[in-house]
Amino acid sequence: MTAVTQELSRFLVASRWSDVPQNVRHEAARAVLNWLGCAIGGCRDETVDVMIATLREFSGPEQATVLGRGERFDALTAACINGTSSNRLDFDDTHLRTVIHPSVPVASALIALAEYRPMTGAEFLHAFILGVDVECRVGNAISPEHYDRGWHITSTCGVLGIAAACGKVLKLDPQRMAWALGIAATQASGLVEMLGTMCKSYNMGHAARNGLAAALMAEAGFTSSERALEAPRGFLNVLSTRNDPAEVVGDLGSRWELLQNAYKPYPCGIVIHPVIDGCLDLRAGHRIDPDAVARVDVTVNPLAQTLCGRPAPHDSLEGKLSLFHSAAVALRDGAAGVRQYLDDRVTAADVIALREKVILKTDPQIEPDQARVRVTLANGASHETFVEHARGSLERPMTDAELDAKFRSLAAAELTPVQVDRLAEQCWSLEKLPDAAVIARNSVSRAR
Amino acid sequence: MTAVTQELSRFLVASRWSDVPQNVRHEAARAVLNWLGCAIGGCRDETVDVMIATLREFSGPEQATVLGRGERFDALTAACINGTSSNRLDFDDTHLRTVIHPSVPVASALIALAEYRPMTGAEFLHAFILGVDVECRVGNAISPEHYDRGWHITSTCGVLGIAAACGKVLKLDPQRMAWALGIAATQASGLVEMLGTMCKSYNMGHAARNGLAAALMAEAGFTSSERALEAPRGFLNVLSTRNDPAEVVGDLGSRWELLQNAYKPYPCGIVIHPVIDGCLDLRAGHRIDPDAVARVDVTVNPLAQTLCGRPAPHDSLEGKLSLFHSAAVALRDGAAGVRQYLDDRVTAADVIALREKVILKTDPQIEPDQARVRVTLANGASHETFVEHARGSLERPMTDAELDAKFRSLAAAELTPVQVDRLAEQCWSLEKLPDAAVIARNSVSRAR
Repeated sequence: MTAVTQELSRFLVASRWSDVPQNVRHEAARAVLNWLGCAIGGCRDETVDVMIATLREFSGPEQATVLGRGERFDALTAACINGTSSNRLDFDDTHLRTVIHPSVPVASALIALAEYRPMTGAEFLHAFILGVDVECRVGNAISPEHYDRGWHITSTCGVLGIAAACGKVLKLDPQRMAWALGIAATQASGLVEMLGTMCKSYNMGHAARNGLAAALMAEAGFTSSERALEAPRGFLNVLSTRNDPAEVVGDLGSRWELLQNAYKPYPCGIVIHPVIDGCLDLRAGHRIDPDAVARVDVTVNPLAQTLCGRPAPHDSLEGKLSLFHSAAVALRDGAAGVRQYLDDRVTAADVIALREKVILKTDPQIEPDQARVRVTLANGASHETFVEHARGSLERPMTDAELDAKFRSLAAAELTPVQVDRLAEQCWSLEKLPDAAVIARNSVSRAR
Repeated sequence: MTAVTQELSRFLVASRWSDVPQNVRHEAARAVLNWLGCAIGGCRDETVDVMIATLREFSGPEQATVLGRGERFDALTAACINGTSSNRLDFDDTHLRTVIHPSVPVASALIALAEYRPMTGAEFLHAFILGVDVECRVGNAISPEHYDRGWHITSTCGVLGIAAACGKVLKLDPQRMAWALGIAATQASGLVEMLGTMCKSYNMGHAARNGLAAALMAEAGFTSSERALEAPRGFLNVLSTRNDPAEVVGDLGSRWELLQNAYKPYPCGIVIHPVIDGCLDLRAGHRIDPDAVARVDVTVNPLAQTLCGRPAPHDSLEGKLSLFHSAAVALRDGAAGVRQYLDDRVTAADVIALREKVILKTDPQIEPDQARVRVTLANGASHETFVEHARGSLERPMTDAELDAKFRSLAAAELTPVQVDRLAEQCWSLEKLPDAAVIARNSVSRAR
């Protein structure tokens, strides 16, 4: 078999910023903006509170910032907390082919490193692009078997992307880059069973911590296998029943996986999105009175039911994985934003009453980004729509203006309008900034 | 399927010290003595130096001691370092059915916790016994498929045992104990591919850190799946192609896996041990002159070749996994102790010359703890022996006196004879000590 680990390592070390095309750089700015908004929006969640209460007793020097909140911890702990908070809202991006949420692990580790070891905005973006490329390429090589088996692919592959990104910034040589990937590979973990619990987002945070530690340990000379990916008892063979090494090292430097990235207009499981689109379209187009709804028929791809079929979610964490809640709250509120997935909305009587009128069917002919929604009213009238591509899909991507508005809406929870303006501007122009860490510092409102 | 996670959690919470039979308690004292000797003996290795150099920059308050050395770090970091150092010599114990090295992860996490949250010696031993039981029971449930696939079973199963042990000391209720197991399960990692590199022992240290963190996070209310072991996308199904949940929860409280524990007389891969026995026996019995040896024929179980077939090891890490080096150095030095596995002995010309005369054969009729060794001399004479059971096997266990001597030999690298006496005595009487952490503090020579 090809020396996948070493070939990948050599590419990472040799890559120059000038090699990265403009459209990839622009996509990186979009991804970082979207990720930072999610981190700020998710930073006050109970998941983050409990994690901070536990980990602060063991944290080292104040090296890096909890985005949005401002507490400072050692860089490894900060990476863990930010990796968790920025996934918590289920509002972060998605590499659709693998269902990896690429930005959360890589950017969360990189920003913690940026505060500890200064780097320019361009260095940050370059490393970010490479890290996303590594995690998604490895994900491609083992999909769909890996996730189907029960591996939470964002964390298992994420840790490799993080090590690659941080190793790039640390300017590791090819041998140490291979060790960094090896140290990361032997820490790869995360079970899909955790969905619906605080551990779901912790999987990302744990990966962020471990991938950053892997790069730092490799820098110091901690040895590992130099065949960690392709060896018979290495990552690819152990963590999947099938793998294609060519996916990892094919077209390196000409195929950029970041260009396959999609952004969410709604903070919930991505397979729910076309259903929300359908409900919102019908409600607006036919001025539907939620109290007049007798029945809602929803038809989706079978995967959507597997991942998000929960009929009776108990709280926010479960609500974000429920087609039933999402359809109901979209019809009820005419929106599906952060507010619609808070605990009190998931357990509200008016939403539950409508949720119980949702009938779910599956149809393998319907793609994961498609849905059919029919709303039947108490007077017998019915309205139906078919969503060809969900908003935010690759065929119908969120525009820069939409991403900017999403960021502003999330960041407004912590920052003043002037602060939001400044931070949005810095994200869009990150490539020109001499110090990437400025976006971490400015994610916190000092005026409060 | 049985509610394995919850049933196990209820048992752990309900278990009382008075429920633990005397022979199990005594085995725990033996295991802790053996583990502590290994930690002290391994504490100056380069693996530990590099780890400390990297992690000290991120460590929190000085809560716990690096055994043998005396640096103090936060409890999570100390657990990681001690988990690594105590496995580094390949001298720690083995649960033969699973090849789990049970004491290293559990004891390394518990001793760090003991310095941070005081516990009695009896509490330490009780938690230790339960932790070993959990990791070995889970290992039994998924062996041999899990290890065969390439999972480093001591770390993957160890993290569950650690969470159970630390959760017991923290007096978690059954729900939080289940969460602790869940948080541990989603952090389970470690590849067999790492053998021969610094990452091998780091797998244990990483597990120690993660299992302790899991218990502390669960205590604080961090939620997880309560079916983390048995769910379709839970630990047992995801990490093995076959599993038997009855192994996890059968005979809880009456079958104690610690009684299946074996201790190593030689600091190398356990499948090498019968070969060393044979070489030492022949050398002593026939007063063999190493310079007169023309050929060494060694026949072992095929597993021994798979795990330890390296014909030309380059350094200590590889030498410990080489039947060839081990046979050669045992014949050359008449010993197979720590000294025989240092870098300079692995690369010594006299050992290499003899190593190249070793001919390895495998025979499935020979058990893993058996070996046939024939030494042929330059004058044509030959001597042969068959080792029925290796020293240290369950059929031929190390006595208390042998374990005591092994401990003293290892501890003497750091402590004065008076200090060694005191520490050995404290390990043997740990059950009576009001503060378990005294063995951590006394592992360090303050006189130096």
